[in-house]
Amino acid sequence: MYRDHNNSELNISSLNKKVTLSGWVQKIRDKGFIIWVDLRDRYGITQLVFDSERTSKEIMEQARELGREFVIQVEGQVLERESKNKNISTGDIEVLVEKLSVLNESETPPFTIEDKTDGGEDLRMKYRYLDIRRNPVKNKLIFRSKVSMAVRNYLSQQDFVEVETPYLIKSTPEGARDFVVPSRMNAGQFYALPQSPQTFKQLLMVGGLDKYFQIVKCFRDEDLRADRQPEFTQIDCEMTFVEQEDILNTFEGLTRHLLKEINGIDVKEFPRMTYDEAMKTYGNDKPDIRFGMKFGELNAAAQHKEFKVFNEAELIVGIAVPGAASYSRKEIDKLIDWVKRPQVGAKGMVYVKYNVDGSLKSSVDKFYDEADLKTWAEQTDAHPGDLICILSGDAHTTRGQLSALRMELGNRLGLRKPHEFAPLWVIDFPLLEWDEETQRYHAMHHPFTSPKAGQIELLDKDPGAVKANAYDLVLNGNEIGGGSIRIHDQKTQALMFDYLGFTKEEAEAQFGFLMKAFTFGAPPHGGIAFGLDRLVAILGGQESIRDFIAFPKNNSGRDIMIDAPAPIDEEQLKELDLKLRH
Amino acid sequence: MYRDHNNSELNISSLNKKVTLSGWVQKIRDKGFIIWVDLRDRYGITQLVFDSERTSKEIMEQARELGREFVIQVEGQVLERESKNKNISTGDIEVLVEKLSVLNESETPPFTIEDKTDGGEDLRMKYRYLDIRRNPVKNKLIFRSKVSMAVRNYLSQQDFVEVETPYLIKSTPEGARDFVVPSRMNAGQFYALPQSPQTFKQLLMVGGLDKYFQIVKCFRDEDLRADRQPEFTQIDCEMTFVEQEDILNTFEGLTRHLLKEINGIDVKEFPRMTYDEAMKTYGNDKPDIRFGMKFGELNAAAQHKEFKVFNEAELIVGIAVPGAASYSRKEIDKLIDWVKRPQVGAKGMVYVKYNVDGSLKSSVDKFYDEADLKTWAEQTDAHPGDLICILSGDAHTTRGQLSALRMELGNRLGLRKPHEFAPLWVIDFPLLEWDEETQRYHAMHHPFTSPKAGQIELLDKDPGAVKANAYDLVLNGNEIGGGSIRIHDQKTQALMFDYLGFTKEEAEAQFGFLMKAFTFGAPPHGGIAFGLDRLVAILGGQESIRDFIAFPKNNSGRDIMIDAPAPIDEEQLKELDLKLRH
Repeated sequence: MYRDHNNSELNISSLNKKVTLSGWVQKIRDKGFIIWVDLRDRYGITQLVFDSERTSKEIMEQARELGREFVIQVEGQVLERESKNKNISTGDIEVLVEKLSVLNESETPPFTIEDKTDGGEDLRMKYRYLDIRRNPVKNKLIFRSKVSMAVRNYLSQQDFVEVETPYLIKSTPEGARDFVVPSRMNAGQFYALPQSPQTFKQLLMVGGLDKYFQIVKCFRDEDLRADRQPEFTQIDCEMTFVEQEDILNTFEGLTRHLLKEINGIDVKEFPRMTYDEAMKTYGNDKPDIRFGMKFGELNAAAQHKEFKVFNEAELIVGIAVPGAASYSRKEIDKLIDWVKRPQVGAKGMVYVKYNVDGSLKSSVDKFYDEADLKTWAEQTDAHPGDLICILSGDAHTTRGQLSALRMELGNRLGLRKPHEFAPLWVIDFPLLEWDEETQRYHAMHHPFTSPKAGQIELLDKDPGAVKANAYDLVLNGNEIGGGSIRIHDQKTQALMFDYLGFTKEEAEAQFGFLMKAFTFGAPPHGGIAFGLDRLVAILGGQESIRDFIAFPKNNSGRDIMIDAPAPIDEEQLKELDLKLRH
Repeated sequence: MYRDHNNSELNISSLNKKVTLSGWVQKIRDKGFIIWVDLRDRYGITQLVFDSERTSKEIMEQARELGREFVIQVEGQVLERESKNKNISTGDIEVLVEKLSVLNESETPPFTIEDKTDGGEDLRMKYRYLDIRRNPVKNKLIFRSKVSMAVRNYLSQQDFVEVETPYLIKSTPEGARDFVVPSRMNAGQFYALPQSPQTFKQLLMVGGLDKYFQIVKCFRDEDLRADRQPEFTQIDCEMTFVEQEDILNTFEGLTRHLLKEINGIDVKEFPRMTYDEAMKTYGNDKPDIRFGMKFGELNAAAQHKEFKVFNEAELIVGIAVPGAASYSRKEIDKLIDWVKRPQVGAKGMVYVKYNVDGSLKSSVDKFYDEADLKTWAEQTDAHPGDLICILSGDAHTTRGQLSALRMELGNRLGLRKPHEFAPLWVIDFPLLEWDEETQRYHAMHHPFTSPKAGQIELLDKDPGAVKANAYDLVLNGNEIGGGSIRIHDQKTQALMFDYLGFTKEEAEAQFGFLMKAFTFGAPPHGGIAFGLDRLVAILGGQESIRDFIAFPKNNSGRDIMIDAPAPIDEEQLKELDLKLRH
């Protein structure tokens, strides 16, 4: 037996016990007569002591040959420490070593295995197994496991059945790009890896399973942005005989349970906001409502003077930045530079200082008098001491730019507190969105989403105005879940494919099985899917998902630890009836 | 709201309540003045009643237009039934319908949605979503979910952390054939889907995670036999600072917990048997020990007469079939035909009838006298009334043939009771096995398995004799789990790759990351993986895994419901830098 205790278990009640421990050498302090070694495992650290008065010369010598990250096993006696360490559970004791075995040696690690490491991102990825030894990474993986278990336990108690849907499915050109898997037994044909189990979960509802969930890997072959992975994990859910209200209540329950169980936080009923309202008030369909700076629209209040920029704008919109009236000219210039960066893309920014003394001073004093500025302050809910930042231009673009500025200022002003949680339902999403590239409407959520009752006629007249039974759950400015009530009759589904530009043949080839299923008594149903990676990161108070994934890929989709993807044998290609073009 | 109760909830305590129910029309009995409809959902059946005295003419007419599998919603009042049905939870009541809405109609299903259906295998696969409506299939999926949850809860309580390892990894020519995934961002390169997360779980142990598990999909591109799927699910586990004994105890604990929690059965300590003993006694490394018919070796007792077949055989081995002495000549001939089928491959079978009166009669009376036969009876532990079946030939083949016969007779005689559970550890597997095709030794488990202490020297002299720290968990004649203590030092791992015929370059290219990891303080570790599909089927008292999988593939690896795999667009191929050879 390698150990009878782990390295967090021994304490003052274990005094004089003979124990066997195993672990890694974290730290060695050699004072000549006495050597202390911190022994580490997943659970904690136990201090070992080698003392020339009580330890044999042989073992003292052995101890001197230890290095960092050596794996050792010791037998010894638990003694009370002289100088106690209140920060760790074993801090009152140490183990006087009577027997020492080196189970494995270690080369010097490429970076320090400490909470704060000197290792850069690439090095830590290449030696991910060493990075996982560090508490911050290890704890995130354990945290993720805990969240997953809490999700499963909650949903199981609510009668949800976890069903594993297949990974080798069929490619559909709709939506993002699929990863495909060539079939050897069916040469020239391909499976696709699921972007989500969408159709399968709907078929489970047709199959009467009533309440389904699955924590499942999904795959998208997209050009990777920072913090997006080609494989990611969804909490995928679907329910039968439900309306939107039932789904919102059920998954508000799940989210509230997680915030309570994982974060110890009680959250009241989640506010709800329509998509239109979210766009108007925050310029964004996933607003962070932990802080204000709501949009104030200034068209009426600003388009009566000679300022051409405003007069020609579709939208003039501002936010009041709390306490920023004291910004220096230089600071404000920097802010203007920030909104002009290509990532944001504003042409300029008008500002109004609402000074603490109540006076108002703007960058457009040439055109507007104090009464005007006062009205603007009212519209943006500004108070003395605030800085009003105003952007203008076409409505959609300007809202996006001001939203980016709002989030940036939220970060800078420390208003986005990682351990404060503000969930929000955004509802009534549009059914369709216009795609400039293909010059046609696309499904905003996916082609299985149902339009609001009575709005299907609008599809011909004003497609962009049709609202869907679709909803997102937003947490701290991140979309953590999204779903919809689905179409469940064959005719509406066929109509929808038609509107989305599928020919009858395409719709049949790709989704014929689903439409066929709808002819055999498909019940009303709907669902939601949560992004687990993101959810876990936010519950953990972090913005980046990467450290909550055991073995993430880099921005080129590579696993640099195992060096994948990689070329395969010509023989393998032949078996798959494939060859490379180059 | 579509319902305020599901179809199993109403009972005598609900009398006179106004309720809203939704579900599928299971059955309609129209007696003219009165119509009964069985309303079904996942949870049960509620009887609806339409009664011309109490129900409006309009609703009566509506009811007459219902068909099987229509999805309906009703409002009505709970009344006591005249003729009660004790078989269902709602059997005391019925609901007098006051309002009826058809939520969706249904075409006539291609097979009956009943516990016993008239649908053939192919039809049921094509319309899997309808098959899932049937209790036997639905209940198996719910059962699987329950087993998975029990596994997760048990392991979590034992400090195991569930970690999701990646699905897009690297192809290795070792072992079974990989499914590969062409990379678009890294043109000409491929990911592979994991056959198991083996190397990743070992890296998690190197990373100090101590106890890992994952319920995870794995993929093997093998020619499919009946009841084998290209994608299957593993309960994958790994532990650090453990010896074989620790692993056996931990997972005996898990299995015992499942048998208790899922089947309500207490099982004592699991017996253990070496691989050699299992082969000698049952001709099989996964013996079903729910019944006897142990092998009796008869070389000494049968090679002293003129019977050439026996005298030339490497092994003569028999089993005593209980109560089969009464078999007619015809029945015995059929048995002989059975062992001569190509799937078994025996050349013939010698038999001895040990009659109830104690007399002995054999098919080789020409060569052997009653004293000989008596000895054989002793060696095979036969009793009066038994039939002794004897095969001979080369040892390995003959054992396999007799094992097949033993299992067949176990089935025929009803000795393999589905709800009796006999777990068994088979230990001390050989490290290597000879492969006739490639004329070399292969790793019997996998190349990461450690040889028994002190046996590594044997590798040169007698590779086939080296035993491994490898074990299988056998349940009712099926291997439900298998694992090993791993190699954890770089030198031994390199040596092993060398023995297995890897060049240094190949070993480095494929497993360099693992061997590198071993140089940074890799701890002793080991693990096990269970086949969840098989485990669930056996706990459910079934031999076939297919109905425990929501959407299985057929024997050509096709999903005939969605019709996958399928050709993909030329455009997609181009993006992947691929073309078809044909």
